[in-house]
Amino acid sequence: MNYAFLTPSSRIRRTPVSDRVETSGVKAYTVYNHTLLPTMFRSLEEDYHHLKSAVQVWDVGCERQIEVFGPDAERLLQMLTPRDLSNLSDDQCVYVPMVDTSGGMLNDPVAVRLAPDRYWISIADSDLMLWVKGFAAGVGLDVTVEEPEVYPLGVQGPMADDLMAAVFGDAVRDIRFFRYRRLNFAGHELVVARSGFSKQGGFEIYMEGHDVGLPLWDALMEAGAPMDVGPGCPNLIERIEGGLLSYGADMTRANTPFECGLGRFCHLDRVVGSIGYDRLAEQAAKGPDRMIRSLSIDGDPVPPCQAPWPIIVGTERVGRVTSAAWSPDFGTNVAIGMLDRAFWEADTQVAVQTPDGPRTATVQATTFI
Amino acid sequence: MNYAFLTPSSRIRRTPVSDRVETSGVKAYTVYNHTLLPTMFRSLEEDYHHLKSAVQVWDVGCERQIEVFGPDAERLLQMLTPRDLSNLSDDQCVYVPMVDTSGGMLNDPVAVRLAPDRYWISIADSDLMLWVKGFAAGVGLDVTVEEPEVYPLGVQGPMADDLMAAVFGDAVRDIRFFRYRRLNFAGHELVVARSGFSKQGGFEIYMEGHDVGLPLWDALMEAGAPMDVGPGCPNLIERIEGGLLSYGADMTRANTPFECGLGRFCHLDRVVGSIGYDRLAEQAAKGPDRMIRSLSIDGDPVPPCQAPWPIIVGTERVGRVTSAAWSPDFGTNVAIGMLDRAFWEADTQVAVQTPDGPRTATVQATTFI
Repeated sequence: MNYAFLTPSSRIRRTPVSDRVETSGVKAYTVYNHTLLPTMFRSLEEDYHHLKSAVQVWDVGCERQIEVFGPDAERLLQMLTPRDLSNLSDDQCVYVPMVDTSGGMLNDPVAVRLAPDRYWISIADSDLMLWVKGFAAGVGLDVTVEEPEVYPLGVQGPMADDLMAAVFGDAVRDIRFFRYRRLNFAGHELVVARSGFSKQGGFEIYMEGHDVGLPLWDALMEAGAPMDVGPGCPNLIERIEGGLLSYGADMTRANTPFECGLGRFCHLDRVVGSIGYDRLAEQAAKGPDRMIRSLSIDGDPVPPCQAPWPIIVGTERVGRVTSAAWSPDFGTNVAIGMLDRAFWEADTQVAVQTPDGPRTATVQATTFI
Repeated sequence: MNYAFLTPSSRIRRTPVSDRVETSGVKAYTVYNHTLLPTMFRSLEEDYHHLKSAVQVWDVGCERQIEVFGPDAERLLQMLTPRDLSNLSDDQCVYVPMVDTSGGMLNDPVAVRLAPDRYWISIADSDLMLWVKGFAAGVGLDVTVEEPEVYPLGVQGPMADDLMAAVFGDAVRDIRFFRYRRLNFAGHELVVARSGFSKQGGFEIYMEGHDVGLPLWDALMEAGAPMDVGPGCPNLIERIEGGLLSYGADMTRANTPFECGLGRFCHLDRVVGSIGYDRLAEQAAKGPDRMIRSLSIDGDPVPPCQAPWPIIVGTERVGRVTSAAWSPDFGTNVAIGMLDRAFWEADTQVAVQTPDGPRTATVQATTFI
C-alpha cells in the first residue's frame, strides 16, 4: 500500500466546518457522498482512546439529507423500505434499510420525521436521492424530493451529554435514543437527535444552512475545554468493535438486509408490497445463506483492508472480511466479515487471506462492544 | 489548504490495474464513483507535458458502466435523455446528457450501443444507476439494469494510434471518433472505442472482468517503450484548456444542459416527452440565463479550486469559477466557470474572488485548445 494524497477539487464538497477541521490538523480524509469526511486527526489509536474517554466534535456533513415532502411523502417512504413505519412518533428517527427490486441493499439511512408529510433521509454513501427521485417520477407520486443544505455535526463520547448540556441546556439530557428535539443555538432552531456512528453515546445536530457551522463548532470547543473536547471523526477501530456496518464496504447491493443482520427491521408480515418484497419474503422463510459477523484475527496488526479478504476453510472460500483493524483495548485484530451459513457459528476457526499472508481468525458470538 | 492523505478502505473500490498504478508511483488520487482515480504521477505539469507529447495509459476503471438490457432498453434510454437516439449506428458511442424532471443535469455519460436491446452507459461521477433502476421500477419497464464488471482503460496522447496499433493491430487506426470495434487481445474480445477525457486523441478499452487488466497494462507499457509511454490520468490543466467539463464540479443538478453548453444535444423538436422535457423546451425557447465559459485569470498560479470562486463585476455576483489551474503552454491561469447572460460575451473583464484575493479575469471566445 502506498499512501497517496487526496487531490482537492470543487467536485469533492466541503462542509460548513471544513475550515475548522483543517486548522485542527486533520491528517486524512475519505470521500463520502461526494463530500470530505475526516478519518484521522492525531493517529487512529490516539483518536480511538480519546473518543472512548472524553468527547469529540465530528464533521459528518457528508451525511447528506434527502428531503421528501408532499401529500405522498409517507406513502413513498413506506414503499422504499421493508420496515413498518405505521407507528412513528413525531420526534422519531428511524433506521430504514432500503433495497432494490431484488432485495439488494441500496443504503441504510436514518429517516427523521419532521412532520407527517415531511422527512429527512440521512444517508450513507450512495446517491440514494437518485433512486428515490427516479422511483417517484416513474410511479408519478405527488412528492418533492430534494437535497437541502443540511449538514449534521456529531458530538460523540462519554462526556457528550455534559458538553451538549453546556451549549444547548439540560433539555438535551432528556432526549431518548433515536429521538430528537428542536433546540436553540444563537437564534437558530436546530434538530438535535440522540444518535451517531459510535457506541460511546452522543448526538447529531442537523445544521441548516452554512452560517451556524463555525459558531457552533467554536461554542462546543470552548464549552468542552474542561472535558478535554477535541476534533474527531468516525473511528475505524471503535466502529468495528461496535459492529457498526459501513455501507459500500461491509454490505453492498449484492446483500439483502437479512445477510447484513438487519432482518429485525424487515416487517414482512405487516408491510406487504414494499420494493423487493418478494425476494425478502423468500429469504425470510428459508433464512439467508450468509451473514455478517464480528471476527478476531490473530497475530500482529493487520494492514488496512482495501479490498475484501477471502475467508478460507480448507480449500473452500466461505466468506470475506471487509473491515479490520488492531484493537488496543482487546489486544487483537477486530474485523467484520460475511460468512457462509455452515461457518458462521461462534468460535468457528477460519483462515483469512490478508495481503501479508494467511491468518487464523475466530468468529465471535457478538460484537466486541 | 492542507493536503491530507486519502484513507484506504474497502468502500473505495480498486480496479484491475490499481496494483500497477501504485507500483508506477501514483502520488495523488481522487474518488470517483466510489472508485480510486489517479490524479498525479510525477507532477501536474510534468504529466501535462508528457500527455501532450507522448502517450499515456490511464486507469479510468472509475468510469463505471450501467448495463441496460431487455425489450424496453431502447425505449428506456430514449426516455432518459433529450438527445435523439433514433439513428444510432451499431458501432456507436453517444454522449447523452441525462436530466431529472426539472431538467437538472444528473450525469453526462456516454452510451455504448452493444446491440439494439443492450447498452452500456459509461458514467461520470454520480450513482446514475440508482436513477435508471428507480425510474424503470416505477414505470414498470421490462428491462434489466445492472453494473457489470467492466473497467475502461484509457490510452491518450498524440502517439495513441501507434501504441494501440502495436498491441491491437492496424484496425484501430480505422476506428472513427466515438465509434468502436471489438478487437482481440490475448484471447479476450474487447470493445475499443476512439474516445477519452483529453483533447490529445486516443482510445478507451472496455476491459470485461478482472483478468485482462494486468496483462494489457504490461503489453501497452512494453510496446510503448519506444514512444515514451507512461502511466497517466485525466490532467486538470489539459482538460481545462480543452473545456472538458467535470460533472459535480463545473455542472451539477442545479444546471440544465443549455447552461452547460450542451444545447446541441437537446433535440426537443424530435424527442417529445423525455424526462424534464417541459423545462428544457421552455429554456430552449427563451435561452438560458447563464452559460459555461472558458476564462483566463491574470497573475501568478492560482491555488486549487476547492469550492466555487465567485465572479464579481462591480459589487454584483455574476457567476462562479469551478475549475482553475496554471497553464504552462498559455502562460496564464486557465479556468472554467459559469457566467450570467449579461457577462458571458468574449473579452468581458470580470473579477474572480480566489482564496488569495481578487484577480482580473477575461471571458474567452472559445476553449483554449
